[in-house]
Amino acid sequence: MVPSNSPFSLTAEEESRAIEDWRAFLRFPSVSADPAHDADCRACAAWLCNHLGRMGLHAEQVETSGKPVVFAERRGRPGAPTVLLYGHYDVQPADPLDQWRTPPFEPDLRDGRLYARGAEDNKGQVLFALTAVESLIRRGALRPTLKVIVEGEEEHGSRGITHFLDTQPERVKADVLLVNDCQAVRTGQPTIVMGLRGVLSLTIRLDGARHDLHSGVHGGLAPNAATALARLLATLHHPDGRVAVEGFYDGVEAPSAEERTLANAVAEDATAYQAAVGVPPVAGEPGFTAAERVGFRPCLDVNGVHGGYGGAGSKTIIPASALAKISARIVAGQEPKAVMDAITRHLERHAPAGLRLALSDRSMPGPALRLRLDSPVAQRARAVLEANGEPVAFLWDGASIPVVARLAQASGAQPLLVGFGLESDCIHAPNESFALEQFRKGHAFVAAFLAGM
Amino acid sequence: MVPSNSPFSLTAEEESRAIEDWRAFLRFPSVSADPAHDADCRACAAWLCNHLGRMGLHAEQVETSGKPVVFAERRGRPGAPTVLLYGHYDVQPADPLDQWRTPPFEPDLRDGRLYARGAEDNKGQVLFALTAVESLIRRGALRPTLKVIVEGEEEHGSRGITHFLDTQPERVKADVLLVNDCQAVRTGQPTIVMGLRGVLSLTIRLDGARHDLHSGVHGGLAPNAATALARLLATLHHPDGRVAVEGFYDGVEAPSAEERTLANAVAEDATAYQAAVGVPPVAGEPGFTAAERVGFRPCLDVNGVHGGYGGAGSKTIIPASALAKISARIVAGQEPKAVMDAITRHLERHAPAGLRLALSDRSMPGPALRLRLDSPVAQRARAVLEANGEPVAFLWDGASIPVVARLAQASGAQPLLVGFGLESDCIHAPNESFALEQFRKGHAFVAAFLAGM
Repeated sequence: MVPSNSPFSLTAEEESRAIEDWRAFLRFPSVSADPAHDADCRACAAWLCNHLGRMGLHAEQVETSGKPVVFAERRGRPGAPTVLLYGHYDVQPADPLDQWRTPPFEPDLRDGRLYARGAEDNKGQVLFALTAVESLIRRGALRPTLKVIVEGEEEHGSRGITHFLDTQPERVKADVLLVNDCQAVRTGQPTIVMGLRGVLSLTIRLDGARHDLHSGVHGGLAPNAATALARLLATLHHPDGRVAVEGFYDGVEAPSAEERTLANAVAEDATAYQAAVGVPPVAGEPGFTAAERVGFRPCLDVNGVHGGYGGAGSKTIIPASALAKISARIVAGQEPKAVMDAITRHLERHAPAGLRLALSDRSMPGPALRLRLDSPVAQRARAVLEANGEPVAFLWDGASIPVVARLAQASGAQPLLVGFGLESDCIHAPNESFALEQFRKGHAFVAAFLAGM
Repeated sequence: MVPSNSPFSLTAEEESRAIEDWRAFLRFPSVSADPAHDADCRACAAWLCNHLGRMGLHAEQVETSGKPVVFAERRGRPGAPTVLLYGHYDVQPADPLDQWRTPPFEPDLRDGRLYARGAEDNKGQVLFALTAVESLIRRGALRPTLKVIVEGEEEHGSRGITHFLDTQPERVKADVLLVNDCQAVRTGQPTIVMGLRGVLSLTIRLDGARHDLHSGVHGGLAPNAATALARLLATLHHPDGRVAVEGFYDGVEAPSAEERTLANAVAEDATAYQAAVGVPPVAGEPGFTAAERVGFRPCLDVNGVHGGYGGAGSKTIIPASALAKISARIVAGQEPKAVMDAITRHLERHAPAGLRLALSDRSMPGPALRLRLDSPVAQRARAVLEANGEPVAFLWDGASIPVVARLAQASGAQPLLVGFGLESDCIHAPNESFALEQFRKGHAFVAAFLAGM
């Protein structure tokens, strides 16, 4: 990590100003999922625009089909590269409110942490990056051209930024895409996220009789939509956990030996996993470690299944219809559309007799992202993070941030995902917070990284 | 059928009196499922008790742990057999009310049918039997000892009558049990029901993680309760439709060649079934006709399955829990408890790794009922019904009337189930009705049958 006495550390005066800005940013209840907070989201975007302007960037609140996107730019030295910073100003809903020790939109600094909804995710991480930019500008040390894009719907479908990227992709052209919307590994080591899985989802519906049937009169005659759906879902996996959809694994890129070693180095053991989650990590394919299954292997999950009676006691019916929601996480080398097509073919091939199969809600927000260990961007980030001797962790994350792959594609930039969030920040939960120490580390990293470009 | 000029036909005066009684009986909204109608049920039972008293029976409203049971008795000639008549005075709820042409509890006679909730099921069929008894008493032609038991919870679990049979079984001892709570075959031919299936049901629950998990972070690690439940339910059947539970078919009694011929003689064809129900009759075991599968074979159905997300769009979670309701219909020769035990063993043997299996709501209301074609009771009923030349249909019904097997056991009587209801009566639905013509046929049959004993 950058030593605390490095030239990129926050000064006391800078920190006190940064905390005031951070508090101001957090006071907007910019909950994107709730239309009642539309005005709060717009006010938050306006504050951020104004803040970027004061920092010396040309900032603009871009109207979209969704919530406004804040876009800012500052020309760098001739010939210097372009860095695109990505973040989001919207937050998750704050409920359940009664579980907060202090109100979610009245930031409270205690025990070295700032408590508020968004304190970490993502206002805290956006703000340490902007504070780093501000420091460099003040010292005349920011050489690259800087672009900043902060969306208002990361927690609710990223509609606005998608519209922006579709209509004005040339504005985000860059060499490096810096994303500070990640968490570090559980040990708290400085972490570079080297991979994200892509995601796709669909709804399966089976329809049969005109209405639920009497199971005595029709049992042994009428095809049962619930039984048939269970049987159809059971065809999706082999008994050993491998996905049984023909072509599902086509194109999957295997990790290198080094990637595998690095991924396994930070893996949680099964006992700790069970203690934390309540189940042992026994799903997925045989022949791969837990870290490999999450980081390098695709998977297919039933997200929900519903049909027939679910109340107290019994109701002896043959359900007329049933539906399931399924989703796949895909990895580098897999084409979302090809996977969706393979699943569709599989379901149609296994469609039960006597019932009507309907597939809908097909969604393919984005492909996977896999970064190269030997890329100059990753190597430079590693060098900056290891400056004080603490080894960097490399994480192949099983989750998806679909907008990152889209941003990488639109900008043509090399993505760099560095996470300063920790499990103890309780993002998306009551009493979210972010430690000043992590804020300082994030600031120092971004400043050192940008100064070196 | 009994010729219309038979000595057992209703006279015009008797019919007009019977219709008045029938209307009075139907005006009570004796909905057993709704506690708001408790007083209506009691008032209905009191009316019935009083009516039986006026007919010359010793009638009593027996208090139970549920709704009162109406029990009445009339001593017959010395040495004459005892006949037990069974019916119920409760009705299904009347909603949706806006679909009734006339109010459900204001009986309306139009086009030769009486319209009201309960017009057929079961007040109409109880009343034609009582009218027949009344005619015979008035003519001095009722030789057997007569017992009448009319319960108030047939549509809601038969709790009261079960309590009555458990505590006072000696009161129902009889030689013949006459049940008029059945429907005729679709052709409308006079029908003797020769078999009913038994029923049993249970709830299956799988529990895993402490809460629903993020499918990106945990996909390929955490066992998925919805996927696992689908896989577990899929083990219940072989691909060809046979039940795969070891021991499930133990003891199943095969029908005789004659029974099979008679059952197939009244079967609906696949085209008519699909037109009526909306699905082809393709479920059940290979090697048996539709009539055989419903009448002589047990089956296992998923009545409902629920777990995880079921709303609009997608929610990419790994469900922490899921539940299913399943039920079996069983046939002659199968022990309900043995079948329940076989299903339990199967589910426990196939319980998925990493999740907790819980079975609950085990219910075994009653075994199957299969009557002998050559029994004197069935043969006498056949002779009475065929008196005017129309051939009798024999039906092995797939549904269950659990209380009939219990009544047969407690009374020691030979059951006789004759149905005068028709599909067009719309029982359990809006605009329930019963044709006067069917009422007259029922009356004539019961009168002729009792007079011959």
